[in-house]
Amino acid sequence: MKNEIKIFSPATVANVACGFDVLGFCLDSQGDEMVIRKTTKKGIEITHIEGYDLPYETEANVAGVSALAMYNHIKPKCGFEIEIYKKIKPGSGIGSSAASAVGSVFGMNELLGQPFTKQQLTYFAMKGEALASKSEHADNLAPAIYGGFTLVKSTAPLDILQLPTPQHLYATIIHPQIEIKTAAARAVLPNEVSLKDAITQWANLGSLVHALHCNDYKLLHRALQDNIVEPYRKNLIPYFDNVKYAAMCAGALGCAISGSGPSIFTLSKGLDAAKAIEQAMIKSYKPTQIKFETHVSKINTKGIKILS
Amino acid sequence: MKNEIKIFSPATVANVACGFDVLGFCLDSQGDEMVIRKTTKKGIEITHIEGYDLPYETEANVAGVSALAMYNHIKPKCGFEIEIYKKIKPGSGIGSSAASAVGSVFGMNELLGQPFTKQQLTYFAMKGEALASKSEHADNLAPAIYGGFTLVKSTAPLDILQLPTPQHLYATIIHPQIEIKTAAARAVLPNEVSLKDAITQWANLGSLVHALHCNDYKLLHRALQDNIVEPYRKNLIPYFDNVKYAAMCAGALGCAISGSGPSIFTLSKGLDAAKAIEQAMIKSYKPTQIKFETHVSKINTKGIKILS
Repeated sequence: MKNEIKIFSPATVANVACGFDVLGFCLDSQGDEMVIRKTTKKGIEITHIEGYDLPYETEANVAGVSALAMYNHIKPKCGFEIEIYKKIKPGSGIGSSAASAVGSVFGMNELLGQPFTKQQLTYFAMKGEALASKSEHADNLAPAIYGGFTLVKSTAPLDILQLPTPQHLYATIIHPQIEIKTAAARAVLPNEVSLKDAITQWANLGSLVHALHCNDYKLLHRALQDNIVEPYRKNLIPYFDNVKYAAMCAGALGCAISGSGPSIFTLSKGLDAAKAIEQAMIKSYKPTQIKFETHVSKINTKGIKILS
Repeated sequence: MKNEIKIFSPATVANVACGFDVLGFCLDSQGDEMVIRKTTKKGIEITHIEGYDLPYETEANVAGVSALAMYNHIKPKCGFEIEIYKKIKPGSGIGSSAASAVGSVFGMNELLGQPFTKQQLTYFAMKGEALASKSEHADNLAPAIYGGFTLVKSTAPLDILQLPTPQHLYATIIHPQIEIKTAAARAVLPNEVSLKDAITQWANLGSLVHALHCNDYKLLHRALQDNIVEPYRKNLIPYFDNVKYAAMCAGALGCAISGSGPSIFTLSKGLDAAKAIEQAMIKSYKPTQIKFETHVSKINTKGIKILS
């Protein structure tokens, strides 16, 4: 059995327009790298962090907290060192904290001989995710662990469904370089929604699940709408309406806020369309004073993976 | 081309626990019979009604109103007579008005050489349904026309999805002989729901659609929950909690109010289970002072059909 493993922990898009708090999908284009090492010294130690300024203290680090949750559950005779090569900017809205939370427990599970299921890994990772977002949710964690599209049916008890991914589906992401904390993005949401809007939302989510099963891109287009969260959160993202309009005109199947933002995602059929949408988004955002990054990604159907 | 057609217009279950206003499925066990006859005299005339006391005046009769909607659209050179052999009790909650609304337009479409699609038939039938329920909805109409499970993604524009039906799925229905008008059942509902409850509901509906695609009966069981409407409407149905408890103990995958009630439906895997649930429901309801009927039905995957 290996003593050290290097993994790629992918970025993810949560909510996916009509699936607030439950739906997510996995990206290929961005992800953290992490090295997990078995040690004779007991406990969890974060020994190296690169890319972004994150705490080394285990209890204050998302990857550390999820690692501890698993560690305290299984009580192994060894300990673990964690190196984090952070590539996903914290607060970008594409599952930065989820990638950290998932990476440590996935790596440890491999080094321990896979005692845990994917669902159990998600459970431990939720403990780390809660440190970042102040609530235990799994809509970014599940796609990072399972790959493709996932639906978190419930978190207590944890119940995750893996949905099919149409073969030609691509995502385009634009990331305006402003920071929105998940907790702040939650604070703008109302506690109550109109029954009428809720009905529209669940009709759309049901339709989206059907569309994924049927490879029905036209239905994906009709279903990728968010009338619950977007009206509130889009105000936190400058020029959201402009860039969405540009993306839809360029052929996006749908365009919505990724997770709690500020990243904005689109889905499209085929790589050419995804690239054309990227250009349209760049053209729309360039005249603003806000720095941004874009990337195009195939839907990552494998999820987190071993690099070496 | 025929000048007269006899059809079976099936009963249906709308809402299906987690799909309020959008989901429905079609029954085999109950349905109206209707005769539609082409006449040289122009217009729509209801010439015979049996079973229940319904208005003969075309504009006051659900089947008449939907027939008129189609008639005024296509403006044929002929007219139509409608005979209604009403078997589904009005106000029972298993799509009595929908069966009437659908029957006339389906029969006329056949006699005219099928100029209309199923979606167009649903559109015309909505005009009749609106007479009964004071609002244009299609959650009972769509399963009667398409068969199996249907999801009404939206009514304006009308967008209906046909979902797959697991082969061994059966429904058991108990119909307490009290009347609840759809409009009254709508009046008890709140205008707003908590975002938390709404999230649970769309997670369940997404899961249900996935379960239908995957023949996953265990997931059907976990998804068949209604935390939006049932808490309000169950108070309109005496002993609802008791009979639900009995059904679930007898092995039902789920048990909830059918449409706006008072009928209560369950779903189960296999005919034996459906019959055992029926017995449990009878045993639970017999001690009450309320008359009731029960029936067991395979899911009707064909929908409305021609008898002769």
